[in-house]
Amino acid sequence: MRQAGRYLPEYRELRESTGSFLDLCYSPSLAAEVTLQPINRFGFDAAIIFSDILVIPDALGQTVSFQEGVGPILDSLKNVNDLESLNRENIIDRLSPVYKALQITRRELPKETALIGFAGAPWTIATYMIEGGTSRDFLKTKFWAFSVPEEFDKLINILVGAITEHLIAQVESGADTIQIFDSWAGILPENEFDRWCLKPIEQIVSGVKGKHPSIPIIVFPRLAGERYIRIAEIEGVSAVSLDQTVSLGWAKKSLQSKVTLQGNLDPVYLLAGGKVMREETARILGAFNSKPFVFNLGHGVLPSTPIQHVFDLCEFIAEWRG
Amino acid sequence: MRQAGRYLPEYRELRESTGSFLDLCYSPSLAAEVTLQPINRFGFDAAIIFSDILVIPDALGQTVSFQEGVGPILDSLKNVNDLESLNRENIIDRLSPVYKALQITRRELPKETALIGFAGAPWTIATYMIEGGTSRDFLKTKFWAFSVPEEFDKLINILVGAITEHLIAQVESGADTIQIFDSWAGILPENEFDRWCLKPIEQIVSGVKGKHPSIPIIVFPRLAGERYIRIAEIEGVSAVSLDQTVSLGWAKKSLQSKVTLQGNLDPVYLLAGGKVMREETARILGAFNSKPFVFNLGHGVLPSTPIQHVFDLCEFIAEWRG
Repeated sequence: MRQAGRYLPEYRELRESTGSFLDLCYSPSLAAEVTLQPINRFGFDAAIIFSDILVIPDALGQTVSFQEGVGPILDSLKNVNDLESLNRENIIDRLSPVYKALQITRRELPKETALIGFAGAPWTIATYMIEGGTSRDFLKTKFWAFSVPEEFDKLINILVGAITEHLIAQVESGADTIQIFDSWAGILPENEFDRWCLKPIEQIVSGVKGKHPSIPIIVFPRLAGERYIRIAEIEGVSAVSLDQTVSLGWAKKSLQSKVTLQGNLDPVYLLAGGKVMREETARILGAFNSKPFVFNLGHGVLPSTPIQHVFDLCEFIAEWRG
Repeated sequence: MRQAGRYLPEYRELRESTGSFLDLCYSPSLAAEVTLQPINRFGFDAAIIFSDILVIPDALGQTVSFQEGVGPILDSLKNVNDLESLNRENIIDRLSPVYKALQITRRELPKETALIGFAGAPWTIATYMIEGGTSRDFLKTKFWAFSVPEEFDKLINILVGAITEHLIAQVESGADTIQIFDSWAGILPENEFDRWCLKPIEQIVSGVKGKHPSIPIIVFPRLAGERYIRIAEIEGVSAVSLDQTVSLGWAKKSLQSKVTLQGNLDPVYLLAGGKVMREETARILGAFNSKPFVFNLGHGVLPSTPIQHVFDLCEFIAEWRG
């Protein structure tokens, strides 16, 4: 989950003095600095590289920008002909600042702190490329995928290739583990989920593992409900990130024998702080205690979160661990 | 699910000659006419009364309007003090046009066609009352519910009372079955889901059943994933509506022994039509064939859906049934 961000004054300060959001992602020393900010403050066990899932469409040649308060804006793909304008060559060259940021971060991080590289999953990235940003109903993407699947498959294949390359390059630049974010996995019917979420993730995992058999891979199929099981059963997946809606008892019973679980405090508890935050944290820690488990939020830290709450949470977990 | 609507030219025509959307909901003969439009065209087995889940906040005295292309707009509740301005008395009087519409519709419907009354669930209605409309993150509502649950509980209790009265009045006006829509059930962590979705729905079901023990009750906890099980286990719930993301095999195994299932074709298949629509429909019909099952969409008909596709779907199902 995004650890760095607007809830940190040092991030807001650095952000004001840089250009666009993507400029920051592509400035290796600044991206490394932002990655290290929350580690320096809170001493988390792992750092996630400061980057964005939309560096992939950007590297493919789509125009990507971020507008404050609105989110990402892309010149949306209209149909299969637009795929020809995507530049699939030398993706890795264009994303080299991300790898430099990983190298710097790995050098500056404490040895015992894990560094997480990441990418968006093909389905999620495709929704942004087709909708031109975020969406309420994802109608254009779903219509394309359901009605001309053989054409949509061409886009997904391009993305599988680019994402696999991007993740391998991150491992080779110092990432100790990688995470695949399928933020919109939760909106698809079963068949389409299998075709556009499950299968492409399987291909990516297999591709990365082929090069780096021992790299742990975490998958986050956000809001996938009972279909988390399918993701946890993918060969080569080490862990799944649970969004905050997944029931603890169900996850323990249905998932924890297959993979390590990571999650799943609702960021709103961190925003609220105090007793409700501690109670919910204790419930999560208690539920998953018996097996390998990584405590985390179920989504990114909300911008208005008081920093003291993050300290309180870390302290509570440290005490609980004893 | 909404059967009537902008995909029907007769609806668009009638809509143009009426005032606001709520005016239409509160005009008994027009609401009945709109309810009957899709039945007259397609001969569905059941009709759902033309109304809206936001008649409840409207009857409670909140200002509710609908803006074309935007959705509902409410003067949002800010805190527990605002609850005092809600008028909990005589809800049923203010909603009497809905009951008149049900009476007219029941009279004009073929005897063998079931008439469905409905209401929103407390959690979903509360989100609209607090956010002032729809939302991307439901941050205000979640923050209120998580951080001062005893205050939020007051709002939920008001809603449980009003919704129970509203559903009972619908049964007494000719509804053969009722449906409870918890459209935003899918966004809550487990504990909060239990407190703000499960328990209030239990209370409503128990209240309605206390008055009308034999009335079938359908619950739609949209996007609730594996927590559909909890809803299906509520005493007195006869059926659950499955949103389009629920896997068929999982639902068959985990839910169909407990309740009748209703669902769950993604409306985008109906928009696409043709072979993909028929294939997906056959898959759903095949999966749930062995037990009581009601074919339906997983959500409302999309406005741009060609009418011919609805005819094709009805014909395909009729042939399948033989």
